[in-house]
Amino acid sequence: MSTINIAIIGLGRLGMCHAEHVASMPKVKLKAAFALDDEQLDLAHSRFGAKPYKDWRMMINQENLDAIIIAAPTAFHPEITIYAIEHGLNVFCEKPMGIDMEEIEQMVTTIKSRPEQIFQLGFMRRFDPSYQEAKRMVISQELGDILYMRGYGIDPFKNLKSFVNYAGSNDSGGIFLDMTIHDIDLVRWIVGKEPVEVYAVGNSLAAPELQKMGEFETGVANLRFDNDMVATLVAGRTAAHGNHVEFEIMGSKGWIRVGQEASPYYTTLFTDKGIVRPCMQSFPERFSEAFKAELQAFIYAVSSGKPNTVAAEVEDGRAASKIARACQESAKHHHIVKL
Amino acid sequence: MSTINIAIIGLGRLGMCHAEHVASMPKVKLKAAFALDDEQLDLAHSRFGAKPYKDWRMMINQENLDAIIIAAPTAFHPEITIYAIEHGLNVFCEKPMGIDMEEIEQMVTTIKSRPEQIFQLGFMRRFDPSYQEAKRMVISQELGDILYMRGYGIDPFKNLKSFVNYAGSNDSGGIFLDMTIHDIDLVRWIVGKEPVEVYAVGNSLAAPELQKMGEFETGVANLRFDNDMVATLVAGRTAAHGNHVEFEIMGSKGWIRVGQEASPYYTTLFTDKGIVRPCMQSFPERFSEAFKAELQAFIYAVSSGKPNTVAAEVEDGRAASKIARACQESAKHHHIVKL
Amino acid sequence: MSTINIAIIGLGRLGMCHAEHVASMPKVKLKAAFALDDEQLDLAHSRFGAKPYKDWRMMINQENLDAIIIAAPTAFHPEITIYAIEHGLNVFCEKPMGIDMEEIEQMVTTIKSRPEQIFQLGFMRRFDPSYQEAKRMVISQELGDILYMRGYGIDPFKNLKSFVNYAGSNDSGGIFLDMTIHDIDLVRWIVGKEPVEVYAVGNSLAAPELQKMGEFETGVANLRFDNDMVATLVAGRTAAHGNHVEFEIMGSKGWIRVGQEASPYYTTLFTDKGIVRPCMQSFPERFSEAFKAELQAFIYAVSSGKPNTVAAEVEDGRAASKIARACQESAKHHHIVKL
Amino acid sequence: MSTINIAIIGLGRLGMCHAEHVASMPKVKLKAAFALDDEQLDLAHSRFGAKPYKDWRMMINQENLDAIIIAAPTAFHPEITIYAIEHGLNVFCEKPMGIDMEEIEQMVTTIKSRPEQIFQLGFMRRFDPSYQEAKRMVISQELGDILYMRGYGIDPFKNLKSFVNYAGSNDSGGIFLDMTIHDIDLVRWIVGKEPVEVYAVGNSLAAPELQKMGEFETGVANLRFDNDMVATLVAGRTAAHGNHVEFEIMGSKGWIRVGQEASPYYTTLFTDKGIVRPCMQSFPERFSEAFKAELQAFIYAVSSGKPNTVAAEVEDGRAASKIARACQESAKHHHIVKL
Repeated sequence: MSTINIAIIGLGRLGMCHAEHVASMPKVKLKAAFALDDEQLDLAHSRFGAKPYKDWRMMINQENLDAIIIAAPTAFHPEITIYAIEHGLNVFCEKPMGIDMEEIEQMVTTIKSRPEQIFQLGFMRRFDPSYQEAKRMVISQELGDILYMRGYGIDPFKNLKSFVNYAGSNDSGGIFLDMTIHDIDLVRWIVGKEPVEVYAVGNSLAAPELQKMGEFETGVANLRFDNDMVATLVAGRTAAHGNHVEFEIMGSKGWIRVGQEASPYYTTLFTDKGIVRPCMQSFPERFSEAFKAELQAFIYAVSSGKPNTVAAEVEDGRAASKIARACQESAKHHHIVKL
Repeated sequence: MSTINIAIIGLGRLGMCHAEHVASMPKVKLKAAFALDDEQLDLAHSRFGAKPYKDWRMMINQENLDAIIIAAPTAFHPEITIYAIEHGLNVFCEKPMGIDMEEIEQMVTTIKSRPEQIFQLGFMRRFDPSYQEAKRMVISQELGDILYMRGYGIDPFKNLKSFVNYAGSNDSGGIFLDMTIHDIDLVRWIVGKEPVEVYAVGNSLAAPELQKMGEFETGVANLRFDNDMVATLVAGRTAAHGNHVEFEIMGSKGWIRVGQEASPYYTTLFTDKGIVRPCMQSFPERFSEAFKAELQAFIYAVSSGKPNTVAAEVEDGRAASKIARACQESAKHHHIVKL
Repeated sequence: MSTINIAIIGLGRLGMCHAEHVASMPKVKLKAAFALDDEQLDLAHSRFGAKPYKDWRMMINQENLDAIIIAAPTAFHPEITIYAIEHGLNVFCEKPMGIDMEEIEQMVTTIKSRPEQIFQLGFMRRFDPSYQEAKRMVISQELGDILYMRGYGIDPFKNLKSFVNYAGSNDSGGIFLDMTIHDIDLVRWIVGKEPVEVYAVGNSLAAPELQKMGEFETGVANLRFDNDMVATLVAGRTAAHGNHVEFEIMGSKGWIRVGQEASPYYTTLFTDKGIVRPCMQSFPERFSEAFKAELQAFIYAVSSGKPNTVAAEVEDGRAASKIARACQESAKHHHIVKL
Repeated sequence: MSTINIAIIGLGRLGMCHAEHVASMPKVKLKAAFALDDEQLDLAHSRFGAKPYKDWRMMINQENLDAIIIAAPTAFHPEITIYAIEHGLNVFCEKPMGIDMEEIEQMVTTIKSRPEQIFQLGFMRRFDPSYQEAKRMVISQELGDILYMRGYGIDPFKNLKSFVNYAGSNDSGGIFLDMTIHDIDLVRWIVGKEPVEVYAVGNSLAAPELQKMGEFETGVANLRFDNDMVATLVAGRTAAHGNHVEFEIMGSKGWIRVGQEASPYYTTLFTDKGIVRPCMQSFPERFSEAFKAELQAFIYAVSSGKPNTVAAEVEDGRAASKIARACQESAKHHHIVKL
């Protein structure tokens, strides 16, 4: 296995996290990085030796790359992916695929026209051992018939202000496309079926300023499947206690609940506040191992030429985006959307 | 305070439970009991000294009663209530008020025409200290803005067969009227508002024979309020681990989750099965104190002539029934029902 | 069964708690109460109709009693018990039996000379369903060989000051006799064997003023049995989070842990303090059902003339006292005490 | 920083685990490995490129090494360490330092004669974030006065048979030296003080064959400090549920409990067995990150020439060994051992 040359596009929190993981892998070289921010570029250069670029097309053209990692704002995903795929690169793209459904379709067409190139979408939860155990129990039928699923993905309240600022000048795609999409992907992945309709509601009771921007701060989506199994997926930005990511599968023989009290340590405190378990404060903390594992899977896929069987592929990205957009429509108009 | 004379109508599991509580109260006499089953009548007679009746009208006419407790099948609630109210009695009636909406309306009219008589509905969860703590936290605004609520009420799988038998010859009213109604009442009681629409789905994946009887074995109801707060209420009959009654309120300053791991003992086992908490096996076990407390409240209301402020009244019963029936309709026809 | 006439001696927190339980029982009459404090006597009179006495001998002589409940300070237990037994009464006596070992021996002799009278000691934990489940698992050998036991009994820190005041003018008997004795009794009851030696240590690091009074604020006792099984029993007065009573049995096939997170409600809070379970704040709250059950057992024993098989008898009281005193001696002199 | 050349002595479970960690570090080369077993040597060669040796002295003499990792049976630690130190190498040595106290003293003398060489002892728990958080809370006085500590280290029952086989032909040093020593080190590290006496008891109730070998299967040690704070440390080999490593600090302002329900996943199962949390099955699983972190610390210490401040040093190893041996003596003779 020869060295894989990689560049990264976007050096925000997640981009930097990916850069670090790539830099620590054997036989992988983070050759270059694109960002608009000088400080970020300097950091990536000093820490990882990545050559700085402020023009990502030039970076792709000049560097002799095997693959790129896209961690730019969502709206840029389609354009960059299409360019990179057409220039022969393997692509690891953060979720979601894009905001505009038409652009996503073009992306899909391009990617499918180059089946020998790897395209992997950043649904990292698939690489978390807890979710893998959940899926294993479903497939082995240890949980019996699956009757109901529930997903929570609630960001810490303390980050709400900075999201409001971000949303003021960026299009997040809305809460269903930005956040719920993780659980949409999990539900599809775990049950291996497509929902037939969605009913969603959104509110911004704790951050009314979001409403004016067309954003919901809390979104509740119900996905109905053809056998009338339902998945209720709640996304939000107001968990006082930290980063609350929980997932539950209710089966006739048993239930599995993932992450109801995910702790950074194995500690319990007994204090005048009660009996306290500390809570994870950020998704990179909760999913630190999964973020590493998804990139290892990508690198291995690139070097072997075979896509990873756990990883989300282009069709997964398209399907999840369509469902997320249907939720958005349902919540906006207060009606059921058939799929 | 002079002795209160009481009779009970229905001596099934819940009827017997109420009889026992009444019999242990000071200044209360369980004078008579109605049932169709001789064994039940004998038991009530030998244990509590209750005079047996096989005609409940005769019992009401002949005994000099202050109040009756109705624990007969739901379909009989309106007829008995109306008769008892018209005969001047105070009435404690099990939930739900009835199955037929028209009959329920007649019940409401009769009860309201006699404001000096106490009518109390058996929503015992209101008397559970955990729910009272939850409501207190909402009212005191310790939880901030209420963004989402979730209720689970799942009966033990081991009781599924006997329910299938029961449903074969009785009209339970459907899962939303029979089970979800507890959480419908809680949501109304806690937020003090009425939902504006419902979206519900039902399935019978684990007990397909129920489908043929027009019953769902699992029901998922979403109640939307005018501020777009949503409550998702899941009822079912297939919890492998026991009686799972859980309720959650998600607020912007904190969440409260009630009963996620309600245990009969304060024990944790460490065995080759893992780290195990035993689970409650029945609702009378989970709510034993609440069942006592609601009857104490009723007796006190009867003797003082003032309805208890926690207890569910006739309007609560009507409202909850209407919402439950809307859920039923939504699940049957796969559409949203406006309220 | 005719009515049982009872009097109570001592109306402190525990005395009042017993009085309330007795008053709510059918076929039992709380005829009289002894206390030095007028307010307490007035309360017992107005709430339960108990005739007030300031001389307990006079009360025993004048009232036609079947039984008395002794909830006076420990030092008075032997004298009162002996007097009551000699006057033909059944006796329910709070733990421990006494402070002075010689007085305890006299008590034992007197009680044993009247085998037809019931003597029951207030080890209420035996009546808690969690401990009964623990004992059941030991006896049924579900836990395999018992290798180690651990008991914690830590009072809330917020009560420390009032204990310091109390200890300033009363002889509590020391922490091992006052507190550890509950777990000493449990260990003997559960394994059905006697320890052969003890090694104990005490400190008053958080309340040095106790040291001057000859009291320990924290006491650690190790009981060794002849098969070298050990029980470590920790008592203290400084739990910041409330009343922490925990008990564990380590067996070769499994462990059972009782009360590690005993909660007053079935609630979990998710707040900016973390994930929080509220904790019991007092032992009457933790053992409310057990306190009721032990008195019911006593009343039933009195009326049937047969001692309850779960309840602690006079020999249990003597044995536990001897062990507790050995712990005290070990902690004082830093040596092992053989039994 | 130039590449560090390392060899490993011993390729059992722990040796292989260390080899893997070293092999994945940048700027570190696992040049050689010693083992008696051919299969182990082949594996180390094929996986890590380590040159195989069956004579560790020859390996030290022939390879140009910076450091060695000693994961051989305990009895060999002193001899190998002394040889390696005298040949100018940095040494990472598994715990405990040795079995014979005289040999340990020689080891200490040799190591202290070469202060410029790094000697690090494998007390990996110091590198676990939960214990670091515990120590932080003690030092910051968030827990108030420390009144009591408790450590459990119980190996899975399923490994008991293989330990009995091992103990038949090897000297483990006894349970206190082999297992309790981890918690002895933690107690010393956290409170920064030395115990003044120990009282220990051992039994082999679940594996009587161990008794004949002079081994205890369960060992309970009490360490008393000069302020009469006590630490109770329980080690054993019979946890039915897995690898149970728990540690608790009781302070006057709060307690911290580490690892009471350490889970391999963030999952809770609700099944007919109850509400179940899976448990860690092995110490390499529980401490996987700590094992990595201690070696990283060692490598950094070697390259920088400065010992890591968290890591256990030679004096820590000596002190812990002395305490462990005192426990062994106490348990053997049923007396207190003064230190």
